[in-house]
Amino acid sequence: MIYPDTVIANISELVTCSGEKPKTKKAMQEAGLIEKAWIAASNGQIVFVGQERDFQANVSLSEKARIIDATGLIGLPGLVDCHTHLPFAGDRAREFSLRIAGYTYEQLAERGLGIQTTVKATRAISAEDLETICMKRLETMLLNGATTIEAKSGYGLNRDDELKQLRVLRSLATRQPVSIVPTFMGAHEIAPEFKSDRRAYIKLLKEEIMPEVRQSDLAEFFDIFCEPTVFNLEETRELALEALKLGYKLKIHADEFVPIGGTELGVELGARSVEHLINITPAGIEKLAASRTAAILLPGVSFFLMSDKKAPARELIDRGAIVALASDFNPGSSNVLSMLFVLQLGVFTLKMTIEEALNACTINAAYAIDRQDKVGSLEPGKSFDLVLCELPSYAHLAYELGRNPVKTVIKQGKIVVENGQIKK
Amino acid sequence: MIYPDTVIANISELVTCSGEKPKTKKAMQEAGLIEKAWIAASNGQIVFVGQERDFQANVSLSEKARIIDATGLIGLPGLVDCHTHLPFAGDRAREFSLRIAGYTYEQLAERGLGIQTTVKATRAISAEDLETICMKRLETMLLNGATTIEAKSGYGLNRDDELKQLRVLRSLATRQPVSIVPTFMGAHEIAPEFKSDRRAYIKLLKEEIMPEVRQSDLAEFFDIFCEPTVFNLEETRELALEALKLGYKLKIHADEFVPIGGTELGVELGARSVEHLINITPAGIEKLAASRTAAILLPGVSFFLMSDKKAPARELIDRGAIVALASDFNPGSSNVLSMLFVLQLGVFTLKMTIEEALNACTINAAYAIDRQDKVGSLEPGKSFDLVLCELPSYAHLAYELGRNPVKTVIKQGKIVVENGQIKK
Repeated sequence: MIYPDTVIANISELVTCSGEKPKTKKAMQEAGLIEKAWIAASNGQIVFVGQERDFQANVSLSEKARIIDATGLIGLPGLVDCHTHLPFAGDRAREFSLRIAGYTYEQLAERGLGIQTTVKATRAISAEDLETICMKRLETMLLNGATTIEAKSGYGLNRDDELKQLRVLRSLATRQPVSIVPTFMGAHEIAPEFKSDRRAYIKLLKEEIMPEVRQSDLAEFFDIFCEPTVFNLEETRELALEALKLGYKLKIHADEFVPIGGTELGVELGARSVEHLINITPAGIEKLAASRTAAILLPGVSFFLMSDKKAPARELIDRGAIVALASDFNPGSSNVLSMLFVLQLGVFTLKMTIEEALNACTINAAYAIDRQDKVGSLEPGKSFDLVLCELPSYAHLAYELGRNPVKTVIKQGKIVVENGQIKK
Repeated sequence: MIYPDTVIANISELVTCSGEKPKTKKAMQEAGLIEKAWIAASNGQIVFVGQERDFQANVSLSEKARIIDATGLIGLPGLVDCHTHLPFAGDRAREFSLRIAGYTYEQLAERGLGIQTTVKATRAISAEDLETICMKRLETMLLNGATTIEAKSGYGLNRDDELKQLRVLRSLATRQPVSIVPTFMGAHEIAPEFKSDRRAYIKLLKEEIMPEVRQSDLAEFFDIFCEPTVFNLEETRELALEALKLGYKLKIHADEFVPIGGTELGVELGARSVEHLINITPAGIEKLAASRTAAILLPGVSFFLMSDKKAPARELIDRGAIVALASDFNPGSSNVLSMLFVLQLGVFTLKMTIEEALNACTINAAYAIDRQDKVGSLEPGKSFDLVLCELPSYAHLAYELGRNPVKTVIKQGKIVVENGQIKK
């Protein structure tokens, strides 16, 4: 028999996303649906998922067990946001207003707007204040169903401020419920001081900051923005090889604006993921689909930049790529904190089915940050990370636009959102 | 001196949308911004809007006056949703899932899905249950900032069930805070019983239901779906003339899929608004821009139907049309209850500026339902309908996607949403 400390009973539809980790092709169509589901956990770990009859046969309820009735609610795994730029200061609302008035993202960057604004603000802020800002953002993410996120540095672009961002992430990981997987992204941009001496910045990264971050265990992943105007293919290769040598797992921002081989390089080097892919080539799609490198698509970017050009989600899935969705939360090109909205953008703007989008926001996103054995699906042995929504069926996650249906969020067995509000 | 019963102090940015009613061209660019604003009301009516110095000079505070400090919040007029199909039963999530699998809206209609599903469900439900469903929807609308809405019948398509829908609206108007402007839309579709005898249905509308609805004062507006597959131009003209004769104000669903002259007819007959306009012709734009008929754009529809074809908002505004935005809330082509999301769709998918979108969701929407003297802007003499959001500036209304920033909603001077929750 199983002796749980927590039981959620009568979930009208439970999307488990269980089975293959990650999912591709036809498996992407399976949401792992259980109707009238019961789920039980002990010490924050799932011990049972199934229907009532199986529950009665296999689970023994002590008097101490907490039982929550979820009649009329649907359930899904805590969502995984596998690509965010969480720790930055300031906002870019003014730049945004100019862009609406007709300036392109690249034109704004030429005028000293764009990422430099955020670098300045992030350098200027204290760790304590940065942590306060991020705490608020994590609350919004949680209220919208995310229980695990990846977060990148990359707005410091010098030793102290990159370390500051990563230390804030480490501190946040212990102070609030959302799990955080840290990525060092000193290679987000050439630091402003080094614009006329790119080599010196690359040297600084390779010889000083990358080793120190790794030795302090401040980041698990290393990510590089591979783009003609940022790091070219050879620089990306050089940094990626160094990262692998130092023991980082690898991610590459590839083919966002101009395809210069970032996807192919990522596959060649066994990167865990390549990200963006709005302008991926047919050859890139083919290579990626045949690999174990995840394709992280960020539909908030095309929406936010009002671009008709979108990542080819359908083709990637149909060819067999491991497709994940993420917010790319950042102040310049995707000011989106809600993974439920990202799921909807996946359906409405990338033409994914609801089941594909669900798997892309859960188990495949977990795979993209190497957490597929801990989170991203509801199965015995996994962390009890559950989202309950007030909706008639899981199709309504996409069908009802513009409102937040999340009632309850459970993280590692603990109720962290109750009645749509952060439980303090 | 002015003696208010309620004062909201220190609103960091107040968007008043005051001035012209409605706004066109350059006036659309003016949000009527007041920084560090104070607003005072008496008996649910605004008596003062301005800055603190003017407030001190002109307003006398009695001990009984309630003062709310809004430091750190932005304010805007209660939003006006000027086109909704609120009173229907059931949902169309299954049809939605099929559509995602590749069926077009028109193909689904051919298979007996589409509007007929909703007609059946709406006929089958009791008035009491329909009212309960609508009450819940109105709460969601209110939580997302709408304080006045238009609502159309049109899923009954017979005398009793059209009257049922309109009576539910009348009852709701007294039972909850959102103001409701009712529209009779028996001409939403040919009733299923009359498919082979269109004339008989039009006769039934003209001779029986239209006069009865008007005599019972159950609807102020009459609306017709002018589309080759629904009511053709001559039928639309016939119904519109009858409606005007009976004393209805006129609205026309025009140029949604195929332009057959609905816009031009609306202008010719002095309709208060023409709605959808996704496929409006250049000639239609010209006529509309020169008229006092409002152009109600419904960006949720293109988004929800995943269509690249969008209403030409920029051209309409630039030519001088009175442009309003609305949700078109309905189960088949725009399952959207949030006017804040509609505002964002206006910016991101129709390329409106934030100021244009704000005016389109407030004063111009109020004009489109003939309420421009009561709501839609924050000025002395108007209803005290205010939304307070936790945002650094009003640009963030569009800049921050995927979350609901509404903290407080005041309707006719009464706090109806507090801390993001319905105040019971």
